[in-house]
Amino acid sequence: MTSGGTGAGPAGPDRRRGRPARTDAVDGPGARERILTAARAEFAARGYEKASIRGIAKAAEVDPALVHHYYGTKEQVFEAAVEMSFAPALSAPEIVLEGGLEGVGERLTRFVLGVWENPVTREPLLAIVRSALNNDAAAAVFRKLVARQLLRRIAAELAVPDADLRAELAAAQLVGTAMLRYVIKLEPLASADPERIVARVAPVVQQHLTGP
Amino acid sequence: MTSGGTGAGPAGPDRRRGRPARTDAVDGPGARERILTAARAEFAARGYEKASIRGIAKAAEVDPALVHHYYGTKEQVFEAAVEMSFAPALSAPEIVLEGGLEGVGERLTRFVLGVWENPVTREPLLAIVRSALNNDAAAAVFRKLVARQLLRRIAAELAVPDADLRAELAAAQLVGTAMLRYVIKLEPLASADPERIVARVAPVVQQHLTGP
Repeated sequence: MTSGGTGAGPAGPDRRRGRPARTDAVDGPGARERILTAARAEFAARGYEKASIRGIAKAAEVDPALVHHYYGTKEQVFEAAVEMSFAPALSAPEIVLEGGLEGVGERLTRFVLGVWENPVTREPLLAIVRSALNNDAAAAVFRKLVARQLLRRIAAELAVPDADLRAELAAAQLVGTAMLRYVIKLEPLASADPERIVARVAPVVQQHLTGP
Repeated sequence: MTSGGTGAGPAGPDRRRGRPARTDAVDGPGARERILTAARAEFAARGYEKASIRGIAKAAEVDPALVHHYYGTKEQVFEAAVEMSFAPALSAPEIVLEGGLEGVGERLTRFVLGVWENPVTREPLLAIVRSALNNDAAAAVFRKLVARQLLRRIAAELAVPDADLRAELAAAQLVGTAMLRYVIKLEPLASADPERIVARVAPVVQQHLTGP
């Protein structure tokens, strides 16, 4: 978790900007959660650059100042929204690694495809990747979360040289597959049964992570 | 080549919109080429959605109507610009396949990395990929050029089942690697010596194309 994230909880608004403390009695119950949910939807729908604090505030039915009050700058709001969207994926290292290194390629491939196959988890992820490809601030958030919290933790378990590079090249296969399948919709990839994709991609991911 | 492309040449303006024929004497010499060069720069700098016919016309020092006259709709202008940017890559199938299937993974990886390593060829490619990820019309152009003119031609040479899917998954590795290295700049991938990347990616591309 980072500053501006969800650490303080709804009962403990962040006062670092020196504004008067607000309470649920003033802002309505759950304003903080409503803002985060609205931010996630706004970034998912419009991408980082087009999304606005004003639009997030309107959807959450709060004053724009309250969005800044709780979450800081637009970049920090984005980071909090991404962390929320990304929370399921942050359990990936445990899930993927708990069976040991044998079969890690297949477990990681299944995990990633599972997240992308489900439209509910796909949309925010897609927004993250799109935003990161279009905007340097969003790319920095992507690096922080994906690289440090996800890939580094997988790489740490690989007893091989170049572990970080290997984990990133495995991620490149998975991110590239998701882009071509779900966004650009190249055929036959876009319509292929997920099991066919797992059968072809899992050995490659395994090779990246543990191969010669 | 497609309609609205570069087929007619500067001396033969396209009359399909029913406008009076213009000549170099009216528009200045090389107006058609200037428009295409300006379009390429505009799409590279601003992406498909933000690029405008007006901006392209201004940079080419012509009337916006002349852009439409030569190239048609914004999507058709984009397609012509992409074809121009993409021309070097369209020679890839010959270069990559002329040595046969052995070593095809390494030749394709080297070719793609070479295009991305050179800033002159990288920028327009990056614009194509970014635009395709953000806009359906641009994605359609990407599918048409990359899938039909590049991947299909490589797949046609592979004597394996699922050749099209294999070629697309190899492309996913290469596109994903380019995105994480040159755009999102994940480290250590972003700073890694290209030879280290070739050493790790080429066997994977080979496995996709010709492996079991």
